[in-house]
Amino acid sequence: MNNTFGRSAALTIFGESHGVSIGAVLDGLPAGEAIDWDAVRTEIARRAPGRNAMSTARSEADAFEVQSGFFNGYTTGTPLCAVIRNGDHRSKDYDQLRHIMRPGHADYSGKIRYGGYNDFRGGGHFSGRLTAPLVFAGAVASQILKRRGVAVGAHILQIGSVRDASFHPLGEDEALFESLKQETLPVLDKTKQSEMEGEIMAAKGDLDSVGGVIECMITGLPAGLGNPFFDSVESALSHMMFSVPAVKGIEFGDGFALASMRGSGANDAFYYDGAAVRTKTNRNGGINGGITNGMPVLFRVAVKPTPSISRLQETIDTDTQENCTLEIKGRHDPCIVQRAVPVVEAAASWAILDVWLSTEKRM
Amino acid sequence: MNNTFGRSAALTIFGESHGVSIGAVLDGLPAGEAIDWDAVRTEIARRAPGRNAMSTARSEADAFEVQSGFFNGYTTGTPLCAVIRNGDHRSKDYDQLRHIMRPGHADYSGKIRYGGYNDFRGGGHFSGRLTAPLVFAGAVASQILKRRGVAVGAHILQIGSVRDASFHPLGEDEALFESLKQETLPVLDKTKQSEMEGEIMAAKGDLDSVGGVIECMITGLPAGLGNPFFDSVESALSHMMFSVPAVKGIEFGDGFALASMRGSGANDAFYYDGAAVRTKTNRNGGINGGITNGMPVLFRVAVKPTPSISRLQETIDTDTQENCTLEIKGRHDPCIVQRAVPVVEAAASWAILDVWLSTEKRM
Amino acid sequence: MNNTFGRSAALTIFGESHGVSIGAVLDGLPAGEAIDWDAVRTEIARRAPGRNAMSTARSEADAFEVQSGFFNGYTTGTPLCAVIRNGDHRSKDYDQLRHIMRPGHADYSGKIRYGGYNDFRGGGHFSGRLTAPLVFAGAVASQILKRRGVAVGAHILQIGSVRDASFHPLGEDEALFESLKQETLPVLDKTKQSEMEGEIMAAKGDLDSVGGVIECMITGLPAGLGNPFFDSVESALSHMMFSVPAVKGIEFGDGFALASMRGSGANDAFYYDGAAVRTKTNRNGGINGGITNGMPVLFRVAVKPTPSISRLQETIDTDTQENCTLEIKGRHDPCIVQRAVPVVEAAASWAILDVWLSTEKRM
Amino acid sequence: MNNTFGRSAALTIFGESHGVSIGAVLDGLPAGEAIDWDAVRTEIARRAPGRNAMSTARSEADAFEVQSGFFNGYTTGTPLCAVIRNGDHRSKDYDQLRHIMRPGHADYSGKIRYGGYNDFRGGGHFSGRLTAPLVFAGAVASQILKRRGVAVGAHILQIGSVRDASFHPLGEDEALFESLKQETLPVLDKTKQSEMEGEIMAAKGDLDSVGGVIECMITGLPAGLGNPFFDSVESALSHMMFSVPAVKGIEFGDGFALASMRGSGANDAFYYDGAAVRTKTNRNGGINGGITNGMPVLFRVAVKPTPSISRLQETIDTDTQENCTLEIKGRHDPCIVQRAVPVVEAAASWAILDVWLSTEKRM
Repeated sequence: MNNTFGRSAALTIFGESHGVSIGAVLDGLPAGEAIDWDAVRTEIARRAPGRNAMSTARSEADAFEVQSGFFNGYTTGTPLCAVIRNGDHRSKDYDQLRHIMRPGHADYSGKIRYGGYNDFRGGGHFSGRLTAPLVFAGAVASQILKRRGVAVGAHILQIGSVRDASFHPLGEDEALFESLKQETLPVLDKTKQSEMEGEIMAAKGDLDSVGGVIECMITGLPAGLGNPFFDSVESALSHMMFSVPAVKGIEFGDGFALASMRGSGANDAFYYDGAAVRTKTNRNGGINGGITNGMPVLFRVAVKPTPSISRLQETIDTDTQENCTLEIKGRHDPCIVQRAVPVVEAAASWAILDVWLSTEKRM
Repeated sequence: MNNTFGRSAALTIFGESHGVSIGAVLDGLPAGEAIDWDAVRTEIARRAPGRNAMSTARSEADAFEVQSGFFNGYTTGTPLCAVIRNGDHRSKDYDQLRHIMRPGHADYSGKIRYGGYNDFRGGGHFSGRLTAPLVFAGAVASQILKRRGVAVGAHILQIGSVRDASFHPLGEDEALFESLKQETLPVLDKTKQSEMEGEIMAAKGDLDSVGGVIECMITGLPAGLGNPFFDSVESALSHMMFSVPAVKGIEFGDGFALASMRGSGANDAFYYDGAAVRTKTNRNGGINGGITNGMPVLFRVAVKPTPSISRLQETIDTDTQENCTLEIKGRHDPCIVQRAVPVVEAAASWAILDVWLSTEKRM
Repeated sequence: MNNTFGRSAALTIFGESHGVSIGAVLDGLPAGEAIDWDAVRTEIARRAPGRNAMSTARSEADAFEVQSGFFNGYTTGTPLCAVIRNGDHRSKDYDQLRHIMRPGHADYSGKIRYGGYNDFRGGGHFSGRLTAPLVFAGAVASQILKRRGVAVGAHILQIGSVRDASFHPLGEDEALFESLKQETLPVLDKTKQSEMEGEIMAAKGDLDSVGGVIECMITGLPAGLGNPFFDSVESALSHMMFSVPAVKGIEFGDGFALASMRGSGANDAFYYDGAAVRTKTNRNGGINGGITNGMPVLFRVAVKPTPSISRLQETIDTDTQENCTLEIKGRHDPCIVQRAVPVVEAAASWAILDVWLSTEKRM
Repeated sequence: MNNTFGRSAALTIFGESHGVSIGAVLDGLPAGEAIDWDAVRTEIARRAPGRNAMSTARSEADAFEVQSGFFNGYTTGTPLCAVIRNGDHRSKDYDQLRHIMRPGHADYSGKIRYGGYNDFRGGGHFSGRLTAPLVFAGAVASQILKRRGVAVGAHILQIGSVRDASFHPLGEDEALFESLKQETLPVLDKTKQSEMEGEIMAAKGDLDSVGGVIECMITGLPAGLGNPFFDSVESALSHMMFSVPAVKGIEFGDGFALASMRGSGANDAFYYDGAAVRTKTNRNGGINGGITNGMPVLFRVAVKPTPSISRLQETIDTDTQENCTLEIKGRHDPCIVQRAVPVVEAAASWAILDVWLSTEKRM
């Protein structure tokens, strides 16, 4: 079940960039959940390209149509399918993708995987466009989570060499998360916005692209979600995150910085805050032994620079079986980090919904 | 199926540190595979504690007994179960674990998860001891992979502030992997061994512990393994790695360093090396779009300092529901990074075996 | 993953009878399979109602639209989604379904299952209409199987008290299967057609309905598919068949008749037919120990009379919480057995495709 | 995951008849469940052979040892593994099984499935002995279910040509279930015991065997468990039952008899019994649309005559690739139906526990 994620909240994604439609089937949603579709549309719009000079000028019509699983204003408990029609594409633009392998893309690995039968137009099933149904699913999940007091927020921690401040590991207010969602370049230190924009525009000017880091926090989770083997909360979140195109690293809490710490500095001391158990620090990112401890879950993902660049690149032609050069035509995102922020939030929301539903079994 | 990993090669782990036994069921192994049990024993011995001053002086009898699935020198294709008996433990040593929550451990999160019914002695099911059956499974998997030309190697990239050289991303010789397996502190730059040992002994002297980073490489994989959604090779490996206690981060290829790169620097140019397709660099860690591209798979995991330290720590007593202090008695590993190396290799071997068997379906 | 069937060939079904659309996502199909869509349409038409006096006069537009996973005439290997739009329904006809529970239907059990939020119009997700995407999936699977020499055929063994002859357990010709597909009432003994039609029309005349038995055979399967625990071929087929509405029993080979046999009569003697291994009888339905033995797989399913009848019935009103009577308005199938034949064939095709892909793992 | 059953309560079985041990891993059990191990032993003893002249005189030591998952008198919530050691076997008795294929057994299909590497001694992984860990798991599950008011009972409905009375479909008292468990030949009409014994002894006298039917009832289940697609209660139970060796058919409620009924006779009328919803008949076996309706779940399984008979049989020798004859030496069960009764009860208990845990997700 390659294209299905989740044991209890099972998300199936289908579609190709230039096919008839892309979409998702959301199975295992609790019945009786009201969904604010406008809020879902807002999330999808955050991901959409073409909003400003920093992203591609292609216009994508990401209007979704719910096919099933929603009745009289509530989820039915049966599968909710949503379809997003693809617009008309001039597929000839992509003809060379059949045999000229774009470096950094899945053209070659995908061609081998599917014996050359996969739809190569616009990256096909590998296209970043497939994150639209993911955002749809996450936006639905986040409304269900919100009703249980869970909030998910994210910001750009880094673009190129510019680094934002970090979330306070002991927690941030939901209002901050909401305000971040309004920003094109959501950062904590607003002085970094223009610097980041500078990095992006400089890369664009060089016909190049630039990567970054996204930091994500989930607040309001109860302690006791997840499992030691093999379905830790980190396992669930990382499994999901590495389905987001361009993500190449993930760390929880202090992550790689823990490598140079001492145990006395890395351990998060517990204390009673009234009847509530809390930790004084949160270097473990709210997770001990794969299970939430009630503190905010905190993680960061590394996003590589988008591989689609206009510069001349060396590569191979699988038709002639010879080396060749490639100039990728058309307009491309010089940076996808800002568009990946709602994707990371959505992906985290779905993964956490599944962890919750899979853990909280009671007879 | 919390305690089962894998769609095709399904690994189930059971046991608690101070229970009768720990063990594993390996389901979905190809039939007809010869297994060198001495080689498996060697791998398990690499993980075992008590080999020198750098690890705990507890002696663990990690002798496994194969119960099933092996007949006349070959795997049968039916489940292979192995059991590792636990020795006699003076369980009273661990009595305070029931109500005094060790910081950085799963004592609290596990207590909530299992309603206080989980076996708390020695960490129970959360104990690092549970990695012994994981090493068993991985050692079996690695022999099966080796027969197909796949080699898995790892070294300590970092302990505390000491950093080793890195694997050459375009590939290392299997002989290097083998020689690394002989080392207590497997590093590429041998001058770092004494420095790392110094870090560890210094932490020990301070009644403290220290973390590190492990770098792992898998060579010889064919292109075309894995999937875009949701079972990317990165998803499979990270899902597995975050089941290894103390792992808090993972990155593939250049990982987090990609965040500050340009696309022109991050893209790996393809070229024909005779009939073979290779890349000139390997900043994507051998994986494009979640699928192997034929280059070595390269990743690094962050290992936090072991939370068991002898220093006085602040924490809570869930019996009295009051804050308290804790001194963890007994001998503890000042560093588990070196013992985690064979665990990471084993975990990678099993995950890759499953990816391979799950991808290579032919009718 | 309630609405997903299959480990390797994973079928997800969505939709409600009166929602926007119903459909299916077919994940794990081999890449590079040509699909004859006209042949799929033919299968779907076999299931459709309104073909004659024996089935409901409602007209259903079962035109499917493939959304993804098919490119340049071949399956891509990525998920193939098909959507079947629902026509306009006068939903008021179904208003009483919200609170008057139809006996024999899932109105009550479904209401409890989904807390009353499920779409009750026309049975919603429980509607027999959901078998249309199942037929779609099976028709695709059967073309893939046919290319490997596998044929699936079925006939009506019984309707009411009229019983057809049985398939010869040692195998039937594929041509017979094809000719059966042309029939409205597919039977081996053509003299039974009018008798069966008589049973159906008599039930209709009585404002009642009638059940039956369908016999299905799968020829051309290699020996060695399936597993002893827990994924036997019988397990896979029965799991699937009990998803087909109205199926209440299944038996393999001689099935329940084996209960009164002696072992000497029930055992199928092996013999060499040249180099081929065959059995002299096939009382085990081509399956030993859960695994195919190379002989035809043979099974029968019991189909209960359709619960929608026009007669006055006793039941409950969940609004008033009182007993009441019910007259189901509209036109209903007096017998769905003939319409279930292509559904059983399709369901068997998908289940067998999954068994094959799940078994035939090779490295 | 061939050898694992269940989404939430995941049962993994391992072992071969003549290997070191057989056993089971029970994952996903609720934490905090007291288990009466003597009651589990009683269930396992019911399955054991050698209790009287009607079953094989082989003595089997079915003493289980719990390895994990149980602490201080309660389930821990982590995997519970139990191992049953195999006794010493004179494996030479079974030498011919390597190349002389026993009719009706899995010798041939298993040999093909596993490329000849499977353990053939005593049937290996296909042995009926593998039902001992299944009974273990079911006995644990039944105690958990009992605490929620669920009772599981079974009796022999038929052996050869002798047929017992049926359970009352509207429900039986738990006391009846308990008294049936005390019987060697559990039947409702005690006059049938000697007739059934006569059938068995006659078969034995003829060096032959005889089959039968087992009827099983589950009372006390709440309405609303299960799913329409694809995890109906019938799907779950049948999937499990066809893992029990020798089972070749299953029917729910009136099953195959529904084929000759009218809808007016097959529909179960709902009524209010005070506040409780009940049905006046139970021809659907307590399941509508794949979901429990609150009435007893009722099903019957067909058990074929044990294929091990002492008579001379025709078969093949895979070494010489010639036809041959076979006389199976040793003592064999002339009837396994009575020994299968506790297996069916146990298998039903586990399957229902999983359905319950998989359905009852709440956030």
